[in-house]
Amino acid sequence: MKYSSKVLEQAVEALNTLPSIGKKSALRLALHLLKDKHNKAEQISQALTALKNDIKVCKVCHNYSDLEVCEICTSTERNKKILCVVESVRDVMAIEDTNHFRGMYHVLGGVISPLDGIGHDQLNIDSLLQRVEQEGIEEIIMALSPTLDGDTTIFYLSKKLEAFNVSITTIARGVSFGGDLEFADEITLGRSIQSRLPYTAQSGI
Amino acid sequence: MKYSSKVLEQAVEALNTLPSIGKKSALRLALHLLKDKHNKAEQISQALTALKNDIKVCKVCHNYSDLEVCEICTSTERNKKILCVVESVRDVMAIEDTNHFRGMYHVLGGVISPLDGIGHDQLNIDSLLQRVEQEGIEEIIMALSPTLDGDTTIFYLSKKLEAFNVSITTIARGVSFGGDLEFADEITLGRSIQSRLPYTAQSGI
Repeated sequence: MKYSSKVLEQAVEALNTLPSIGKKSALRLALHLLKDKHNKAEQISQALTALKNDIKVCKVCHNYSDLEVCEICTSTERNKKILCVVESVRDVMAIEDTNHFRGMYHVLGGVISPLDGIGHDQLNIDSLLQRVEQEGIEEIIMALSPTLDGDTTIFYLSKKLEAFNVSITTIARGVSFGGDLEFADEITLGRSIQSRLPYTAQSGI
Repeated sequence: MKYSSKVLEQAVEALNTLPSIGKKSALRLALHLLKDKHNKAEQISQALTALKNDIKVCKVCHNYSDLEVCEICTSTERNKKILCVVESVRDVMAIEDTNHFRGMYHVLGGVISPLDGIGHDQLNIDSLLQRVEQEGIEEIIMALSPTLDGDTTIFYLSKKLEAFNVSITTIARGVSFGGDLEFADEITLGRSIQSRLPYTAQSGI
């Protein structure tokens, strides 16, 4: 691509480093910003600088936060005895959006993955054990991906947590609500039959 | 979506203002930038600030440029007698990429479009007429979109240019190279039959 301006080229190349934004999309974005009259470029520029400089990682649960300790960890209205272990900040947001969980979180920062070179020492496991020891946690919900790496991580954590008097649960997996049985994959359907539940007229959790 | 951090939320909202980037994509981008170790966020931030502050519009052809007059307009190796009129900077880049045109450009900044409220006075038409008058241009190639608005604009320009001794051409339209006839739309195919050319063993233009 022949650019009429070095500045434009640099902006396109910077935007092109973002995931799922190719050269053509990056050029379209840059030209859009140049045409824009509302100073979007400056707003984005400032927001990204703030993102890098001002955001903190909660000392307790490793979630992103504006303060040293995040709002969830400082909340007095949540059940501090239940801890939900997740891979990433994105998962915390997903669970919070359900409005079905009022306990605490712990962000591992990934799962143990030998193929990707991620060992247990790169994850926030030590701080998890420390929390279980110090905060009197009674239940740990493992909300990790249903993959081999996720299962390995749950197994590793369960071994580490044996020393503590804490019950370990995993989130239910099965055919999704509203999903037709015929469209569910074989593994999900098979597992959901294995882990069938006694029928009760449940009103939700 | 419940954000754990205001700074993160602001970054997502800023990125969300970009075209074709929804809330979820914006969140993915922001989280990617937070995880990134190469300081991409700062690079993008700087590039966008430069984009807004340093880029200029060429005084002659209205292309984006780092200088008052762009490289194409100051080049001594190009044919200054032929002027290609295009809608946008993106079109200049597309034509430059073909390596088939060594004349000059004039960026209109759009086409006359009554429905979108774009009149002839919002386009770079006066400067075009001035250039034709002062620069001794012999041919004007109209490379505008094959739409009603594009055709209207060509018609308007051709009327304005009647006063000058300049030949007006439009770029050829037809079935694209490598395109099967059966997949060409009816209008393109119909027009390409109407504007058929005598066969010569052409070696390209």
